[in-house]
Amino acid sequence: MTTLWEKIESVGPLDETAMAAARERQDTLTKPLGSLGRLEELSVKVAGIRQMATPRISDKAIITMAGDHGVAADGVSAYPSEVTPQMVYNFLRGGAAINVLARHVGARVVVVDMGVAVDLEPHPDLIVRKIGYGTRNIAVGPAMTKEEAVLAIEAGIEIVEAEIARGLDIVATGDMGIGNTTPSSAIVAAVTGQAVSSVTGRGTGLDDVRLRAKIETIERALCVNQPDPRDGLDILAKVGGYEIGGLAGVIIGAAANRLPVVIDGFISGAAASIAVLLCPQAADYLIAAHNSVEIGHRVMLQRMGMAPLFDLNLRLGEGTGAALGISLVEAATRLLSEMATFAEAAVSEAVDNAGTTVV
Amino acid sequence: MTTLWEKIESVGPLDETAMAAARERQDTLTKPLGSLGRLEELSVKVAGIRQMATPRISDKAIITMAGDHGVAADGVSAYPSEVTPQMVYNFLRGGAAINVLARHVGARVVVVDMGVAVDLEPHPDLIVRKIGYGTRNIAVGPAMTKEEAVLAIEAGIEIVEAEIARGLDIVATGDMGIGNTTPSSAIVAAVTGQAVSSVTGRGTGLDDVRLRAKIETIERALCVNQPDPRDGLDILAKVGGYEIGGLAGVIIGAAANRLPVVIDGFISGAAASIAVLLCPQAADYLIAAHNSVEIGHRVMLQRMGMAPLFDLNLRLGEGTGAALGISLVEAATRLLSEMATFAEAAVSEAVDNAGTTVV
Repeated sequence: MTTLWEKIESVGPLDETAMAAARERQDTLTKPLGSLGRLEELSVKVAGIRQMATPRISDKAIITMAGDHGVAADGVSAYPSEVTPQMVYNFLRGGAAINVLARHVGARVVVVDMGVAVDLEPHPDLIVRKIGYGTRNIAVGPAMTKEEAVLAIEAGIEIVEAEIARGLDIVATGDMGIGNTTPSSAIVAAVTGQAVSSVTGRGTGLDDVRLRAKIETIERALCVNQPDPRDGLDILAKVGGYEIGGLAGVIIGAAANRLPVVIDGFISGAAASIAVLLCPQAADYLIAAHNSVEIGHRVMLQRMGMAPLFDLNLRLGEGTGAALGISLVEAATRLLSEMATFAEAAVSEAVDNAGTTVV
Repeated sequence: MTTLWEKIESVGPLDETAMAAARERQDTLTKPLGSLGRLEELSVKVAGIRQMATPRISDKAIITMAGDHGVAADGVSAYPSEVTPQMVYNFLRGGAAINVLARHVGARVVVVDMGVAVDLEPHPDLIVRKIGYGTRNIAVGPAMTKEEAVLAIEAGIEIVEAEIARGLDIVATGDMGIGNTTPSSAIVAAVTGQAVSSVTGRGTGLDDVRLRAKIETIERALCVNQPDPRDGLDILAKVGGYEIGGLAGVIIGAAANRLPVVIDGFISGAAASIAVLLCPQAADYLIAAHNSVEIGHRVMLQRMGMAPLFDLNLRLGEGTGAALGISLVEAATRLLSEMATFAEAAVSEAVDNAGTTVV
C-alpha cells in the first residue's frame, strides 16, 4: 500500500469548474435566487469534491470506530470501560442509536475495533484492526507510540478505501470508547492552546466534582506529554486514541479519493483536527454535521473554519449527528439534480423595478 | 360537518401518561441519559400528541396551499403573480423543491388551490378549494370577508381530515403565493405589536428601495384595517390570505385529530399564529422546523414559545423546511421505538463515585 505521507500528498483541491457549473445550475432552478441557503452551498461543495456538476449520493456509510482509553482508570467517565465492547456488540446487533439512524437515512454502519481493551467475539460485520488493547494512561505518559499512531491512521485509510471499493458516495465518522472525551479535550487544548477548563465537558454525564478531576487529569496529560501543537502525529501519539487515529485516517483516505466526509461530534472533531494538521487540504472535504453539547466542539470547529449544520443538543457520538447530516447533504444534492429549471417548468423569472429579469 | 368552533373546542391537551411512558423508556435506552437532546424531547412530545408510548410515523404528508394576493399589485414581490399558478403546475409535475424533498423524506405532497387568481387546469392531484380569485389589496381594505376567512379555515380542516382518512401520522404545512410575505408580516405585526420594519424582510429578494415600499404598504394595511390583535379571525380577514387561512385550518384540524404538525417558515408561521390565537391549545401540536431568513419569523416563533429545530438560511417556503423537519421527527420516534434497552443489550449502566448505578 501507499504510505500515509503519499496519501496526504495525493489530496487535491476542490474542482472549481464543477463548482461553477453547480452554482450556475442552482441559479436556473425554480426558486428565488439563493433561497435554499446552506443546502445550495452544500450541493456546490459536494460538486467540487466529486468533480461532477450534479453529483448523486446513493451509497452511504457511517464508519464507527471503537477503542479504549487507559485514562478511563482515573474515573474520567460515568461509565466503566466494559461498556465499550458491550456497545460494539449492540452495534453489531443493530440496537444502538447509530443503527436506528443509519437505517433511517439509508446508510450502512461499518463497525471497527481499533483498540478495544478486550478481544471481541468474531462477527461477520466486525472489522478488527486492533492497534493495542486500549491506549496507555495519558495522565502518566504517551497514549501510544508514534509507530502505533501511523498504523492507526493507515488502518483508517485502508478501511475507507475498502468501503469505496464496495461503492461509496459519502462517508460519516462515528466513535465509541469509554473515556474518549478526555483525549479529545486534550487534543483540542493542544491544537488551539485554549485552557483545558474551557474545552472540557461532562462527557456522558459527570457531576461537578468529577468534571473538576477530569480537567486536572487532562492538564496533567498535557504537562507530562508536552505535545507539539503543529504536529498532528505527535498530538495523536501523546494524548490521542486508537479510534481517533483511525477516524483521522478515514478522513484523509476519503479526501484522497474525493469523497465528502460528514463529521459527527466531539471525538470525530478531534480526529478531524489531527487529520487537518497532517493534511490541511483535507479540510475542504469535511462537512460538520452538528454542534455538540461538549463545550470544546465549537472551539475545534471554529479553528477549522467550519460551521455545523444544526444543533440538537446531541452528545452521544457513534456517528449519530453525522447520520442526520448525511441526510441533509443527500437532500442538497437531490435538489441540485432533480429540481426543474425555470425554462423546463415555464415559470417566469424575477423582475426588477425596470422590468428587467434579475434571475 | 362540524363547525370551526366545535373543532376548536375538541382540541385536547397532550397525554401526560403517554409522555411519562416515553420519557421512562428513553431513560432505559442504550445511551447516556439525555444524550440525544432535542430528539428525545421530540419523541416525548409526539407520544403525548399520539397518545402512544412508542408512536410510529409511517404515513407523511406535506399540504402545500396556494393563493394570490391583491397587494402584489403594489410591487411587494420580486416576482409577478403569474408565478403562483406556474409554480402550482410545477408542484403537480414534481419539479419543485418541495417535490424533491418530499420524495427524499418519503412524504406525499398535497397541492391545494385556496385562492389562485386564475382558474387552474384540472389535474387529478390538484385539490381546488378556491375561496376567491386572490385576496383584495390589504393596503386599501380587508383581504377578505369574515365569512371567507371562516370558509378558508374550514376548508383546511376538511382537507387534513380527508388526508387522515387516507392514513396520516404527521403533517407539514407549506405555501405558495406571490406576495405572501406581505400579509405574513402584517399578521406578525398585528399579533405582536412589533414595528413593521422589524418584522418585514426581502421575501423572494427585494432591493432596499422595494423593501422600504413594502414596509410602507404593510404599515398602510394595518392603519386602514385596524385588525384586533386578540382576534385571529379578524386579523386573517383584514390582512391575511386564503392559503394562510387554509393552513390555519390544517393546523386546527390536525390538532383536533391528535396529529403532529411540522410548520415550515414565515407564511406557515403566520398561519400558526392565527391558529393559536383561535385555539391556544393547538400550540402543543406544533413543531417548528426551522428558522427562516425572514426576520419576522423568529419573532412569531418566540411569541408562540417555539424553538426551531434548525437554521439553514432557507427562505423558499412550499414546505421545504418542514419536509426536512418531518425527517427529524421520524428519526426521533424511531430512536424511541427501535433502540435496545440496557437490559436487552446487556450493557452496564453508569455508576457514580460511590459505585452506585445512576441511570
